[in-house]
Amino acid sequence: MKFVVDQQVEDIELPENLKLNTFLQEFHSDCHDPQCGFGFYGFAFGQSPFPVPRPIQEALVKNVNKGAYAPVQGIPELREAISKYNKFYFGIDVDPQRIYVGPGTKELIFNLLEILHGTVILPTPAWLGYLPQIRFLKKNYHMLLSGENGKISPHDLKKLALRLHDRQKILILNNPHNPTGVLYDKSDLEEITEVCREQGITVISDEIYAQTTYDFSKFVSMGKIYPEGTFVTNGLSKSHAAGGYRLGYVIFPQHALDVRRQFKKILATEYTAVSTPIQHAAVAGFEISSELNDYFEITRNIHQLIGEYTFNFLNKIDGVVATKPEATFYLLADFNSFANELEKNKINTSQKLSEALIIHPYHTAIVGGDSLVLERTDFRARIAFVDYDGEKVYYNYKNQKPKTFSEKLEFVECNAPKVVSGLKMIEKFLNDLKRNLNSDLQTLENPIKLTI
Amino acid sequence: MKFVVDQQVEDIELPENLKLNTFLQEFHSDCHDPQCGFGFYGFAFGQSPFPVPRPIQEALVKNVNKGAYAPVQGIPELREAISKYNKFYFGIDVDPQRIYVGPGTKELIFNLLEILHGTVILPTPAWLGYLPQIRFLKKNYHMLLSGENGKISPHDLKKLALRLHDRQKILILNNPHNPTGVLYDKSDLEEITEVCREQGITVISDEIYAQTTYDFSKFVSMGKIYPEGTFVTNGLSKSHAAGGYRLGYVIFPQHALDVRRQFKKILATEYTAVSTPIQHAAVAGFEISSELNDYFEITRNIHQLIGEYTFNFLNKIDGVVATKPEATFYLLADFNSFANELEKNKINTSQKLSEALIIHPYHTAIVGGDSLVLERTDFRARIAFVDYDGEKVYYNYKNQKPKTFSEKLEFVECNAPKVVSGLKMIEKFLNDLKRNLNSDLQTLENPIKLTI
Repeated sequence: MKFVVDQQVEDIELPENLKLNTFLQEFHSDCHDPQCGFGFYGFAFGQSPFPVPRPIQEALVKNVNKGAYAPVQGIPELREAISKYNKFYFGIDVDPQRIYVGPGTKELIFNLLEILHGTVILPTPAWLGYLPQIRFLKKNYHMLLSGENGKISPHDLKKLALRLHDRQKILILNNPHNPTGVLYDKSDLEEITEVCREQGITVISDEIYAQTTYDFSKFVSMGKIYPEGTFVTNGLSKSHAAGGYRLGYVIFPQHALDVRRQFKKILATEYTAVSTPIQHAAVAGFEISSELNDYFEITRNIHQLIGEYTFNFLNKIDGVVATKPEATFYLLADFNSFANELEKNKINTSQKLSEALIIHPYHTAIVGGDSLVLERTDFRARIAFVDYDGEKVYYNYKNQKPKTFSEKLEFVECNAPKVVSGLKMIEKFLNDLKRNLNSDLQTLENPIKLTI
Repeated sequence: MKFVVDQQVEDIELPENLKLNTFLQEFHSDCHDPQCGFGFYGFAFGQSPFPVPRPIQEALVKNVNKGAYAPVQGIPELREAISKYNKFYFGIDVDPQRIYVGPGTKELIFNLLEILHGTVILPTPAWLGYLPQIRFLKKNYHMLLSGENGKISPHDLKKLALRLHDRQKILILNNPHNPTGVLYDKSDLEEITEVCREQGITVISDEIYAQTTYDFSKFVSMGKIYPEGTFVTNGLSKSHAAGGYRLGYVIFPQHALDVRRQFKKILATEYTAVSTPIQHAAVAGFEISSELNDYFEITRNIHQLIGEYTFNFLNKIDGVVATKPEATFYLLADFNSFANELEKNKINTSQKLSEALIIHPYHTAIVGGDSLVLERTDFRARIAFVDYDGEKVYYNYKNQKPKTFSEKLEFVECNAPKVVSGLKMIEKFLNDLKRNLNSDLQTLENPIKLTI
């Protein structure tokens, strides 16, 4: 029997990180080099490596008997806890009525884009999840290229908004920013808000990395600066290392009563509610406690340590420019100065650069620029620095916090050896490229192919 | 700030059961009668009242530390377990590659309707969840009225299919059937399949109530009869009393490779994957064990006991005709012979009948016909017979299984007193109606209004 699939579904692409992951799973067993029992250095997949905080695990244990459907918006005690969490950490007063819980911020952002009429403004580079959603929903959209500092300029935003004639304009702001690790500070947000107020721009502020901000005092939520026009999304995935739990939330703008009513219909129509035991577990994740506070502090300190190491290592390589992360566990590395050498090796797209790096002897997985909504020929790539044993590193850090520069260096080298080796592999690749030694680059005969 | 909501979102309605539930929550505290501290007799919400099976709870306890993202299709061990479960209970050989896991069958059906091009054929009466999805996705659809036996006729299906000129036609078959409790047997399915093969009709077979079939030997999966053209959906919600866990699965038709590839893109774009701890817990729910087998048997026996009581009670009321459930925990009760009396009391829609029954002194919640995709003036209503303490009743039944007719009667009266009292309330309402005693009916001054 033949099945007919909707054209708009045919047209979208699998999010690049999942495509890559599928490839890596296949590649793992496929490297034919006789010396090669090794998988790869993983700079591609953006997942916090730490254990799920103990209070969340314990709360889940206590609530395994909760088989009944939860209310569409989320259980009241969870929305209450999220409200208090926002007050404590982000200094925002949010009535629990303004909070809706969903199975991850990804689906909540999808649902918001489903219900909000209008043109989307997507700053680039961007997290690889937004564009497939926008395309699938057939929304009008415009890119907004970030400047050298990794941030969009309020001036450019205004210029673009003036060109758009849609009744509603929706800016997707991702702060802290994936893939650059850059943080918009208070004055950045105030300037953007000024333009948004003037031009009537609605903001979806994806703040999933908020809690990973290295100097946490610097993080400011857009929900605080522009409360009447911002949908803030956040959740357990990054700060609580519980991406697999699938729990996120959205804070609706003040007074957005009708939108909340419409949103509830969509949730009820599409998925009823988030898993009840998971919601009860999440309550513990948003309660204020010194244990969780320590967890946030330790994990963000480790991200910073390894992030600074990665940044320093890459920036020391002649020709590489990397963004300096102030949050998250990513940075964006720019290899464009190698364009000529890459071209000589028939590497003329970022996709081909990713492929060349993954094969023997480099075995290094990165996310190429075209997945980050950059030009196909832009040789920038996201480096996620999380390929280490999070549980072990967490306890090592807790037991002996490195203080001096050399202690920090030693900590990273002992605790994240694959990150260090992977960075050396990138360096070797670039050296080989310069010396034109890597004729191996052409050995990947078949382009990356997807199987289900 | 004003937000503009997409018109198609504005146009859909909240699924009726959730609307009703919201109303009941409000009503609960709103009945102004001084004698009234009572809530309501709940025939409206379709949720299994039993405890989540012990093996599932224990497996969840063991997997609370699983914070990592799961693969989009579902973890391999779960798809393996579901495959074996289908072999054991439904006699179908399903390669785990054909199985995709989702956060409830509701979302999986939504995703299938998203990717499958074509016109939907929706048999009526129908579960209240399909129509809002179809409308929201702006799909073409046609109703197909079921016959007096509660089933669609293959002849009518063929006639309708011949009128449709779409390249693809999608029949949503719900077997066993919500709201009637009716079961399509093997020969019914074979006749429907013959038409589907001839007319090239794709089937989404929602078999979420399969395991509740009172005489389980009678249940046959459409995936067995029409394997090349059927998407079978099932999950934990009804058979395992774990609707709140949010875990369902779809079995793709044989050889539907391209559709599976497209489906994976949609899942990855919309929600990444189902909660990892929940997936690990579900493995235990689909493993073959005498404990789970006993659980299925006991719970389906209790549904049958209370279902037969409810059926007998309603059918004894002069003028009421109820469907005889062979599965599920529902039946459809027909009050159309009271149309004149209802009319005299200004009750001229099924919605108004639901409202009249909910107010003092009746306090009885049913789901009216318009929520079941029937005409607004059709006075049939779904009666869910699950308003009892499932944990207590489960153990009472296990300890002493009623055998004779009088033991069964006594069991229901002792164990499901609210079901019994609620049925008596329906009888009283109808008697009052006949004797024109219920001038109270007009006291619900404000129509049901939704707040968020």
